[in-house]
Parts: sequence; structure tokens; C-alpha cells
Amino acid sequence: MQHTPRLQQLLEALRCLPGVGQKSAQRMAFHLLHQDRAGARQISTALNEALEHIRPCRQCRMFAESELCGYCSSQRRDPGLLCAVEGPADVMAIEQAGGYNGRYFVLMGHLSPLDGIGPDELGLELLEQQLRGDEVKEMIVATNSTVEGEATAHYLAEMGRRNDVGVSRIAHGIPMGGELEYVDSGTLAHALSGRKMI
Amino acid sequence: MQHTPRLQQLLEALRCLPGVGQKSAQRMAFHLLHQDRAGARQISTALNEALEHIRPCRQCRMFAESELCGYCSSQRRDPGLLCAVEGPADVMAIEQAGGYNGRYFVLMGHLSPLDGIGPDELGLELLEQQLRGDEVKEMIVATNSTVEGEATAHYLAEMGRRNDVGVSRIAHGIPMGGELEYVDSGTLAHALSGRKMI
Repeated sequence: MQHTPRLQQLLEALRCLPGVGQKSAQRMAFHLLHQDRAGARQISTALNEALEHIRPCRQCRMFAESELCGYCSSQRRDPGLLCAVEGPADVMAIEQAGGYNGRYFVLMGHLSPLDGIGPDELGLELLEQQLRGDEVKEMIVATNSTVEGEATAHYLAEMGRRNDVGVSRIAHGIPMGGELEYVDSGTLAHALSGRKMI
Repeated sequence: MQHTPRLQQLLEALRCLPGVGQKSAQRMAFHLLHQDRAGARQISTALNEALEHIRPCRQCRMFAESELCGYCSSQRRDPGLLCAVEGPADVMAIEQAGGYNGRYFVLMGHLSPLDGIGPDELGLELLEQQLRGDEVKEMIVATNSTVEGEATAHYLAEMGRRNDVGVSRIAHGIPMGGELEYVDSGTLAHALSGRKMI
């Protein structure tokens, strides 16, 4: 026999979550319905609230609850420094690392023509507007070190050059505490070719 | 900088899901907010619907949308056979295995005095009422093969005996296709002591 219709509906809905398949969806649904009805209500409310109030920041496309996000509206952030990242999770990671005090631009993806993701989808027009202005002195390109991330980085570097903005790329090499013996050869080759005089 | 308040609220709510920690909650929230707003709405609606309409079956405590669940109200199920399981997921597993055509009783847990789970929490009074009647001829105890599951099985066996209902336990031993060489020694010892004449 099958699940009841509303249970079936819930299972299908939960599978919208990334990394959740049939078994996990069932586990989640049974847990919420039997052991945590308050939690289920909380999730439902929080989702509705978030959908209603969270939208992209007008300036950097980060999630925000007003026109500008906290980074763009902060007076304590250096407006001359702009860090381009692929997603909001990257912003959180950089913030957690500490030491960066500029603004961000969140691409919400990377260039991937095969998936139909071009400059328009990444809001590159909005980014170029900002580079064209006088404020930004340096753009740090912190896209991922994947084929698409590197292609995006090249595109952004080009854009920076044509607008007379300095462009830098975050360093790639041996991770802190990493031992050469155990580092993969791609990373090691990259670290060698990217060596710096000391 | 921290997440926006409503995003923070959503992250905390998502952590009510079993197996979801801080990183997964963030991944889920960002995915829903950026890439699958329709999915987010669907989850919220499905949760509300489920909370409103799904309740325990009056007779077997399985999730149901009316007084009786599909198993208890079905005319094609043998009312003389009752299978006691720990949770709804066990019912689904037995149904998927096929071959069982009786009814169920869902304990929604196992005896665990340390966690404050006694006979009342498992609805054993409701179960005993059914065993006291004339309808049930055999109760199959399909609780898990854990310490608590076995203790619960003993308790149920006792209850069956005092109500003159035959009680059986599902077989434990080498899994189908399992090779002796790779089976853990606990299972192997159990399989040896539980041998049957052929």
C-alpha cells in the first residue's frame, strides 16, 4: 500500500531539498510528523517569512532584507575593494576567515554556456556599472578553482582591465598545514608554477 | 557579519530536520532561496497540510488521514494477523517486501525506561484491547534486533500469552545472499542457535 496522499505530497516536496532522496525524505517526514510537530510548523513559517522578505541586494546580489545588504550599507567597509564570489556560501566562508573588509559581488553561479548561464544571468552588467564608477580600486576574483570558475575569473579580469580597475585572484596552492607528500599533484604543480620570491 | 534575521531563523528551523547540521541547513536555505523558490513554497504548504490532516490511526497508530488508516479499513487484509513494529518506516519496509497481508500495530518507539518511554507511550493498552478480542489469532513481533527492540518483543510476547494469542518473532539470521565469511559473529552465532531442521 502507498502513503496517504498528503504524506506523499510532503515526501515529494521534501525532495526539493538538495541531497535529499526518497529515504531521507521519508525519515524527515516521519520525524517531523511524529516527534517534532513544532519544528515542522517552525520550518513552514520560516520558509514563508524568508520567501516574502529575502531578496537580492540591489548592489551586490547577496541575500538581503532591504534594498541594500548589510555589507553594502555598512560604513565600516572599504568601498574601494570588491570581492567577486560565486555564491552566498562563499561570502560566509570569507567572513568567517576574517581579515577581509571590503564589499562583495555575488555572481550566483559561474559562466557555463552549456547550461545557458552567460553574463546576463550572473549580473555582470551590474558589476561593470560599478567598475566603471570611480569608487572601486581593486577587484579580488574569488571564484572557485574549477574549469568554470577559472573561465569566469578570466572574463572578470578582462572586464576589470577595460575599466581600469586592478584585478587580483586569490592565491591557490598548498593548504595551510598541508604536507607536500599528501597533496594532489594538480595542486602541487599549481603551487610550483605560482611560486613567489621571498 | 551574520546572516539576516529571517535567514538565521530559517537556518535554525531547518536544523529541526534529522541529520541536518549547520552546513547542510545553509546549503538547503541558499538553494531554496536562490534556485527553487517554488520548491520552498511547496514544502511549506505540504508541511501545513500534513500537520493539519495527518493523525494516528485510531486502531493501529499508523499515520492516517481519517479515523482508520488504509490497512485497518481495508477489506482485503486478514484481521487475524497483527504485526507489531516500532515505526511507520518499518510498515513501509514490510509492505515493500510483499507477502504480508495482515494488519499492523505501530508502537512509535520501543520500551526505554531511561528515556521515559514505557507501555503508555507505546499505546500498549490499545494493543492489549485488540488482543483481548476474538479477532486476532497471531501477533508477529517485528521490533528491531536491538537491546530495546528485544526487550519490547519480550514484553509483547508476555502480553500475547496472557490473552491467548499466538506470538511469533520474525526470523533473524544470515541475510539473503550473505556469505558466512563476511557476516558479523553476533549474527552468525544467532543464526546457529536459531537453526531449523530441514
